[in-house]
Amino acid sequence: MIQYLTTHPWKIIEEGFKRKHHRSSESIFSIGNGRFGQRANFEEDYSGPTLQGSYVAGVYYPDKTRVGWWKNGYPEYFAKVLNSVNWIGIRIKVEGEDVDFAKCITSNFRRELNMREGYLVRTFDLEMPSGKIIRAEAKRFCSMADDETAAIRYAITPLNFTGTIRFQPYLDGDVKNHDSNYEEKFWEHVHSASSPASGVVVCRTRKTEFDVAAAMRIQVELNGKEIIPTYHHSHADFFAENNIEREVHQGETMVLYKYVGLVSSLNYSREELANAAQKAAERAIKSGFDSMLKMQAESWSKIWDLADIVIEGDDEAQQAIRFNIFHMNQTYTGEDARLNIGPKGFTGEKYGGSTYWDTEAYCLPFYMSTKDQKVARQLLVYRYNQLDKAIENAQKLGFKNGAALYPMVTMNGEECHNEWEITFEEIHRNGAIAYGIFNYIRYTGDEKYLSEFGWDVLLGIARFWSQRVHWSKARQQYVMHGVTGPNEYENNVNNNWYTSYFAKWCLQYTIEAMELLKSQYPDAYGAKVARYAFDETTEVKRWKDIIDNMYLGQLEGTEIRIQHDGFMDKELAPASALSESERPINQHWSWDRILRSCYIKQADVLQGLYFFEDHFSKEVIRENFDFYEPMTVHESSLSPCVHSILAALLGQEDKAYEMYMRTSRLDLDDYNHEAHEGLHITSMAGTWMSIVQGFGGMRVNNGQLTFNPILPKQWKAYSFNVLFNGKVVKVAVNKDGVQISE
Amino acid sequence: MIQYLTTHPWKIIEEGFKRKHHRSSESIFSIGNGRFGQRANFEEDYSGPTLQGSYVAGVYYPDKTRVGWWKNGYPEYFAKVLNSVNWIGIRIKVEGEDVDFAKCITSNFRRELNMREGYLVRTFDLEMPSGKIIRAEAKRFCSMADDETAAIRYAITPLNFTGTIRFQPYLDGDVKNHDSNYEEKFWEHVHSASSPASGVVVCRTRKTEFDVAAAMRIQVELNGKEIIPTYHHSHADFFAENNIEREVHQGETMVLYKYVGLVSSLNYSREELANAAQKAAERAIKSGFDSMLKMQAESWSKIWDLADIVIEGDDEAQQAIRFNIFHMNQTYTGEDARLNIGPKGFTGEKYGGSTYWDTEAYCLPFYMSTKDQKVARQLLVYRYNQLDKAIENAQKLGFKNGAALYPMVTMNGEECHNEWEITFEEIHRNGAIAYGIFNYIRYTGDEKYLSEFGWDVLLGIARFWSQRVHWSKARQQYVMHGVTGPNEYENNVNNNWYTSYFAKWCLQYTIEAMELLKSQYPDAYGAKVARYAFDETTEVKRWKDIIDNMYLGQLEGTEIRIQHDGFMDKELAPASALSESERPINQHWSWDRILRSCYIKQADVLQGLYFFEDHFSKEVIRENFDFYEPMTVHESSLSPCVHSILAALLGQEDKAYEMYMRTSRLDLDDYNHEAHEGLHITSMAGTWMSIVQGFGGMRVNNGQLTFNPILPKQWKAYSFNVLFNGKVVKVAVNKDGVQISE
Repeated sequence: MIQYLTTHPWKIIEEGFKRKHHRSSESIFSIGNGRFGQRANFEEDYSGPTLQGSYVAGVYYPDKTRVGWWKNGYPEYFAKVLNSVNWIGIRIKVEGEDVDFAKCITSNFRRELNMREGYLVRTFDLEMPSGKIIRAEAKRFCSMADDETAAIRYAITPLNFTGTIRFQPYLDGDVKNHDSNYEEKFWEHVHSASSPASGVVVCRTRKTEFDVAAAMRIQVELNGKEIIPTYHHSHADFFAENNIEREVHQGETMVLYKYVGLVSSLNYSREELANAAQKAAERAIKSGFDSMLKMQAESWSKIWDLADIVIEGDDEAQQAIRFNIFHMNQTYTGEDARLNIGPKGFTGEKYGGSTYWDTEAYCLPFYMSTKDQKVARQLLVYRYNQLDKAIENAQKLGFKNGAALYPMVTMNGEECHNEWEITFEEIHRNGAIAYGIFNYIRYTGDEKYLSEFGWDVLLGIARFWSQRVHWSKARQQYVMHGVTGPNEYENNVNNNWYTSYFAKWCLQYTIEAMELLKSQYPDAYGAKVARYAFDETTEVKRWKDIIDNMYLGQLEGTEIRIQHDGFMDKELAPASALSESERPINQHWSWDRILRSCYIKQADVLQGLYFFEDHFSKEVIRENFDFYEPMTVHESSLSPCVHSILAALLGQEDKAYEMYMRTSRLDLDDYNHEAHEGLHITSMAGTWMSIVQGFGGMRVNNGQLTFNPILPKQWKAYSFNVLFNGKVVKVAVNKDGVQISE
Repeated sequence: MIQYLTTHPWKIIEEGFKRKHHRSSESIFSIGNGRFGQRANFEEDYSGPTLQGSYVAGVYYPDKTRVGWWKNGYPEYFAKVLNSVNWIGIRIKVEGEDVDFAKCITSNFRRELNMREGYLVRTFDLEMPSGKIIRAEAKRFCSMADDETAAIRYAITPLNFTGTIRFQPYLDGDVKNHDSNYEEKFWEHVHSASSPASGVVVCRTRKTEFDVAAAMRIQVELNGKEIIPTYHHSHADFFAENNIEREVHQGETMVLYKYVGLVSSLNYSREELANAAQKAAERAIKSGFDSMLKMQAESWSKIWDLADIVIEGDDEAQQAIRFNIFHMNQTYTGEDARLNIGPKGFTGEKYGGSTYWDTEAYCLPFYMSTKDQKVARQLLVYRYNQLDKAIENAQKLGFKNGAALYPMVTMNGEECHNEWEITFEEIHRNGAIAYGIFNYIRYTGDEKYLSEFGWDVLLGIARFWSQRVHWSKARQQYVMHGVTGPNEYENNVNNNWYTSYFAKWCLQYTIEAMELLKSQYPDAYGAKVARYAFDETTEVKRWKDIIDNMYLGQLEGTEIRIQHDGFMDKELAPASALSESERPINQHWSWDRILRSCYIKQADVLQGLYFFEDHFSKEVIRENFDFYEPMTVHESSLSPCVHSILAALLGQEDKAYEMYMRTSRLDLDDYNHEAHEGLHITSMAGTWMSIVQGFGGMRVNNGQLTFNPILPKQWKAYSFNVLFNGKVVKVAVNKDGVQISE
């Protein structure tokens, strides 16, 4: 745990420059608007350790896979989330001296992420090697109201001298990815141009040929009044800049406004692109910084109206939940069916790809409850659109007859991951995708979705499971070998309970959905039977046989579901027996040792009990929770929220609170020592769930929303809203009781 | 199976240029002398597909590891067998026209590897694009008698013209490795020089800083008489050459002799190196080609005297066994304790490293029986010298107290392999290393070896096993989780019978060896106790507890040893059920499918029964053989020989013969479609074993050599020699009986 940030209900604040945590701060203070995002890199030069990151949604590069020994079925490439054109850059010279933040003495530094209004601001005094001191304030945001624009206001005041200040705002497309596998260049120059107070750069990704255009418009103020300086402008491949120099008297303030337009070929033809970026920049400059900022605050205000969770009496918890909700909304707004929710959002490169099972398992409930129903539907349609690729993917692995295996990581439906134990074996993702459909329909009642898109996906998934199990003569049951469950600290195991239970449920649900189609949408059903050459009699017969005879491990004389074959053969010991110096074990232990240990990376059996809570009595859940929880090391961001929800269900309030704090402050307090790589965006939805489903006890059954709230003793009160059947339900919990209103 | 070579008892012959098999031929016709080796690349230019390979023993490069997701304990680098200076090159011009073999019409092509005398010769007529035809003969060898030298004789006769022939013999150190992970250059230029009829090049590997020097001396003959042409010479970085041009009349023959000296900094100081190479080349030219070739034949004659196996009535089998013996002798001569037997020897780059468990499990018996005892001892000392590194390696993985885990692949004792399921889990290699000591002492009676080096290694290995097992409360026995057995088509399994049995045996043998030391070499023992802080009472107590309580799976009601937990739960089916188009499955199936299947890559339980044959009755072996053999796909080169030996033991002659042909002609007939990558050198020793131990039934028990020969019905007779207790034992088997003589 690393704590260096100031607690505040609506802000993330860094007081004094924490140099060694700067890369983490760059992640934590990231801003975005669903269309693009930007790490909290500095505008001015910074020669210290930094991870530069400017990301444009949907723009990726197929980086050649790096692998020790090739295995059949591995994808050729890994879709990389792409560092794209640097649009924030402003080089600064003071009396001819280049400002390099890393080489100056900093004082009065304060970095603030204003989550209520959606902007990043940084103030500081810099003493340069020459002894000159400037005071600066840099404020910026990615506009939610006009998601092709961003704006920066950069103010400088000479504190102990009078002299020239030079601003060099630029656009630079000659950027690298830190995690490029072969140090390849991902971008090619297309076009650049500059004129006084403006510039434009267009770049193209290699191979995928996405074009990205960035344009800027510049304005300058001295002591609050616009001035028209001489603009020296230039451009080169990948690059465009303006230079503005002006003598500024001690105590005077010179301000640079940089208005940015940023668009990609996802939304414009190549021919229009440069123009579209320039038009966006022009809209921004016409609107002006203050007016844009006001609209930004209004946009965020609307989001908060619905999505905010208020916690009284615990500012750390309050700050954390808003931090999570803020980043979820920055990452995905639900406006584009081609996009999804990358595990790092727009805050880092790691993991590549955009879509994991996280989307269905964690993010969907958040978007269902805080956005219009079409947003969640759109997330499901995303998978429907990739069904053909999922079928191809299964074929590669030897499956037949339209069986579909959705990829572990993807951008366009093709698998990007390449570790056999994950790529080929962590197949439970197929279960989560089916569950997403079920969960969406349960919440919205939108059964029609099945007839349009949903059942097609279910069929492909059911066909996969029916081929993936095999009959064990020895056990006289169906078994599933060679699996990696959600607990990735076990590889290539047999009969992972979670996966097998899910397989069985998927078959069952597909049959139920089929029955519904047959009675409610017979025409749609008939069309699907033809389209997928569905042999109902034979296929359903096999599915039912599997449902009836699936092996699911249970410890004799108990209700404990055995994580997988051989688990009970391990040395079982609580995670509390580990020394602090060994944690997280994935950074200290060799892989075989992790695999041999009993330690559980993230909820596995418990994840299943969470999803299928209504299939089990509370006693069964309790027995499993008490058995598995102590062995869980929560080294995946997706783990604590599920434990928090179950603990709340079981009335284990302290555990629920501990796990809540862990999930909600995972990045703020950097539990797993990896915030510098980017934030854990998808698990942030889990944080939301741990309040709404955990403490709030929200469930949906038979079209009814129910709540069973508890109030952690650390809190005075909390309240939240959920959108259900088009209505906002307000839930307020305090020591006196619960208030639910529509 | 790909058969394009001519059968001959002493020769490998390619009649007519088999263009599409050229890369395989380059492997098959490789030559070497234990100190260096050379693929059968052409001397003249060849713009077609080729894998250039010139390898110097002990010279390697630590290529940066390529891996998808890093895991703790992975090595940073992979030691690459290094393509080094090209010393065979002779560029040829005919009337100013460059000769590119790939662009000419070839006729009368014949490539021959003379195994009896140890040289490679190639004859051909080349019609160039201009229509000119030359006849050529290129003969070369790496001298066994003076292992710093090689010689090439290249003769050209214009068949349909009179004109200038230009030879440009050169040395070129600017070479690449085909399998470089990041396309890095591995070599740096150190020195080059040229003078009339001679040249020298010295290069240095990056990082490891090995120097290699090659020198050449040139001689020219016309119609059998030496001539002194004008030598135009030049040199540049990495490069030295001479040019000799001469008008040659139709039907006349011009011959170039290229005498080469090749030395490395393993044997010389950097200062002496260039000089040492030049001196070697000078020795060669002074000796002359014919005289060197005569010595070469004499050297090989001595090798064959002892090592030859004669098979009558089956030329394919005869050719094959000599091919195997020939390459074993080219790869390792036993003269340098720092060297070992790479899986591809000097015939390819693949696998890198030089030392696998193959050395102890397969190669040692061959060298024990066909070379002086000190050669086998030296192979064991190699491991003793790397004990410290093996202890470090185990520490990296979390083991303590001097536990040693030998690497899967190594050059200098450090692990080079980086796939977790192999690197961390294929730990049975430790067993083979202990078995090597046992096997050597059983064969030679050299118990003193234990007091000098052997027990130190056994102790480290025993300590490893005693920590690698754990007590299972559920089973009330010791179990071993997270293992990959010799059958690499099962990863991360529990209680692999082979590995667990070996662990138990290692502990037992270490105790026996300890008792021997205590009674025979008490001083040495005392020193070791102190050196390794060996706590006899506590440690031996634990070992005995493990020996007494080790879990070893056995199928109820049978003698079948269960390969690992869960194996009986699989769909069991014979390999014969697979279609030909799916074979080898590792080139057609995804990895998870291979893992889930019952198919066995190479002997696993059967490998254990082979090693410990005397622990089991023939009935037990038979039951297991009949169970596992049909499921074995033999997609490792190390598999068929063991099956051949067991089949012979069990009197299953046809199976023994089938497996013998498969192991012995693995590369000649390219069973696994990979001869182009290099030959399977270490499994060649297995081929030798399958005759001597298989058909010949040789065993050593209580210091006695015994034979129990069978004669395959395809053969008239066979005979071989083994060296035992310093005496040559001759074994001759024919239809009339067996003759054994000393």
